[in-house]
Amino acid sequence: MTTAARPGPIRWLTVTSSPFHAIVPAGGAGTRLWPLSRTSRPKFLLDLEQNGTGRTMIQQTWDRLVPLTGPANLHVVTGAKHAEPIAGQLPELTNLVVEPSPRDSMPAIGLATAIIAHRDPDATVGSFAADHVIHDVDGFHEAVREGIAVAQQGDLVTIGISPTSPSSAFGYINAADPLDGFAHARRVGQFVEKPDEQTAAGYLAAGTYSWNAGMFIARADSLLQSLATFAPQLHDGLREIAAVWDTDQRADVLESVWPGLTKIAIDHAIAEPLSLRGGVAVVPATFDWSDLGDFDALAELRGGHGDEAVLVDSASLVINTTDQTVSVVGLDDAVVVVTDGAVLVTTRTAAQQVKQVPAAWADRGHADLV
Amino acid sequence: MTTAARPGPIRWLTVTSSPFHAIVPAGGAGTRLWPLSRTSRPKFLLDLEQNGTGRTMIQQTWDRLVPLTGPANLHVVTGAKHAEPIAGQLPELTNLVVEPSPRDSMPAIGLATAIIAHRDPDATVGSFAADHVIHDVDGFHEAVREGIAVAQQGDLVTIGISPTSPSSAFGYINAADPLDGFAHARRVGQFVEKPDEQTAAGYLAAGTYSWNAGMFIARADSLLQSLATFAPQLHDGLREIAAVWDTDQRADVLESVWPGLTKIAIDHAIAEPLSLRGGVAVVPATFDWSDLGDFDALAELRGGHGDEAVLVDSASLVINTTDQTVSVVGLDDAVVVVTDGAVLVTTRTAAQQVKQVPAAWADRGHADLV
Repeated sequence: MTTAARPGPIRWLTVTSSPFHAIVPAGGAGTRLWPLSRTSRPKFLLDLEQNGTGRTMIQQTWDRLVPLTGPANLHVVTGAKHAEPIAGQLPELTNLVVEPSPRDSMPAIGLATAIIAHRDPDATVGSFAADHVIHDVDGFHEAVREGIAVAQQGDLVTIGISPTSPSSAFGYINAADPLDGFAHARRVGQFVEKPDEQTAAGYLAAGTYSWNAGMFIARADSLLQSLATFAPQLHDGLREIAAVWDTDQRADVLESVWPGLTKIAIDHAIAEPLSLRGGVAVVPATFDWSDLGDFDALAELRGGHGDEAVLVDSASLVINTTDQTVSVVGLDDAVVVVTDGAVLVTTRTAAQQVKQVPAAWADRGHADLV
Repeated sequence: MTTAARPGPIRWLTVTSSPFHAIVPAGGAGTRLWPLSRTSRPKFLLDLEQNGTGRTMIQQTWDRLVPLTGPANLHVVTGAKHAEPIAGQLPELTNLVVEPSPRDSMPAIGLATAIIAHRDPDATVGSFAADHVIHDVDGFHEAVREGIAVAQQGDLVTIGISPTSPSSAFGYINAADPLDGFAHARRVGQFVEKPDEQTAAGYLAAGTYSWNAGMFIARADSLLQSLATFAPQLHDGLREIAAVWDTDQRADVLESVWPGLTKIAIDHAIAEPLSLRGGVAVVPATFDWSDLGDFDALAELRGGHGDEAVLVDSASLVINTTDQTVSVVGLDDAVVVVTDGAVLVTTRTAAQQVKQVPAAWADRGHADLV
């Protein structure tokens, strides 16, 4: 492949009526929400909103996507450990792709895309995390519909979240020129990695940056073409597996091919290199969004209201999944998490450091709690 | 009784060889150490030192006193609820005085004194809390022996603790002139109630003030004489019970007399009024001492070393009586207490407010946890 400074976007045939499939990668350790989330019960299997909504995060993800896809076009990609609880939580799910081992988001999304494309070469796909919170479902649908329309031009489309704070916990997407004929979509100027807080404040002030929430929409053939361009070995492996997915050779081919696939995120595999060629668009979202990435985000979501507790001279957040009583005296901003077998006390400020804790317990022989 | 400005001390016969009896009132709710201490397992029944000494606080009190008294002269006064666990913890204890209801320290100490005086009119008695920590046992014995010697002059003698901080959690004793013929004893100028911190700082700077730890030594006849002077009705009631204590009328007389006795602390009943007549001496103690009154005191005693926990960027104290794991991320100065059924998070600074918590849970129908 020859290189050129910012060549024009890669474009394929524009198709106006392409069936839409959603791909939900359900993985991630969620160690920053430990001990609420554990390896055996990751965030997406939990109902984390105040007082409970009665639906877990992956169930809410299903509820949000199924109006766009129908049950038959909704695909969940997960590890063997979580296949059974996911099937239990989503009884209408027919497309559960079980990875033999975690290989990051590109192989997961890529495999589902290849399977979909093998069945339906005309499909459009969108990837959406299994454990994010969005209350404005109409706003979400509107953004996805615009993304699907933009994707028909051949672009990889990402949905950008309007930043509400100078967060250093997210990657950012810088929007460039508006796309003709669309309400909100713009060309992506650049993907930028998680910045420091000062840089993030600059992004917030600039007004053109949005958070990268890992939502990508593309025609399946476009996405696979990008993969063939930027990661041909991965592309070929995924195509090889997809070709036999609906046959009795699935297990054999998965077993022989999957372990050799590159472990890489979709951002690094295709979104960033493609953006340098002008091939990525962003639909800036207006809907609310939280990745519930840590206890600070959970406290934000709950508006400071925790589970029943006695608080004396304290404005702390208490999360208690046990029948023990919890009491806090004289601390502000603390987060107290009481679960079966593990008690965690932290602050909203220190919430990001929580991820160090499960590893520390594993080192001390408490792998059962991780 | 006629009043006069600071009349001379009340003096009785000086006796040089009087058998010494220790009285240990074992009561108190210990709500500032909740949920570690509960109504059903007060502080004195617990082993609270780092890693455990293998001896509970009342057992350590026994160990400290028995060299001075022998097992036969050691008396514990407690409520019906704690009689059995105390008897279990102190198998050599023969003198367990069970109060029908709590009546504060004067009736408790007064009844034991009256029983002792009835059996042995020549006795000297000393009262010592069941739940204080003293490591320098030799220093303690030295102070008590000096107190016993001073008490032979007829004085009520208190052992004053040298203050180590301007604490507002204790009453103070202001020492006046030295007593002739004794190494450390001085006349008590005044008992003062718990001061504010600024006043306490002044006391610390003055150098003549010591903490009132409720340790009183007196000849039994002197103490009862003071009681007859300042609280004659209480004196008469206690004498009436004591007269039948070793007979089969004990239960009947206790039941009829005890409920009518005045609820009053020994400080207010006799020590303070007697000090105004110059009848109280203080032996300033050189030994270490802690009343383990709250989690700040417990943290002080443990030197910041808690039970096993994962601490990330935190210098908190963890006390964990369960097999749950405890993790603290990003808090300094916190105290995390995890017990069966109750989790408490506080700070050393807020430790005094912990006493509000058990009442709050009782109000919410969790009387079982209090």
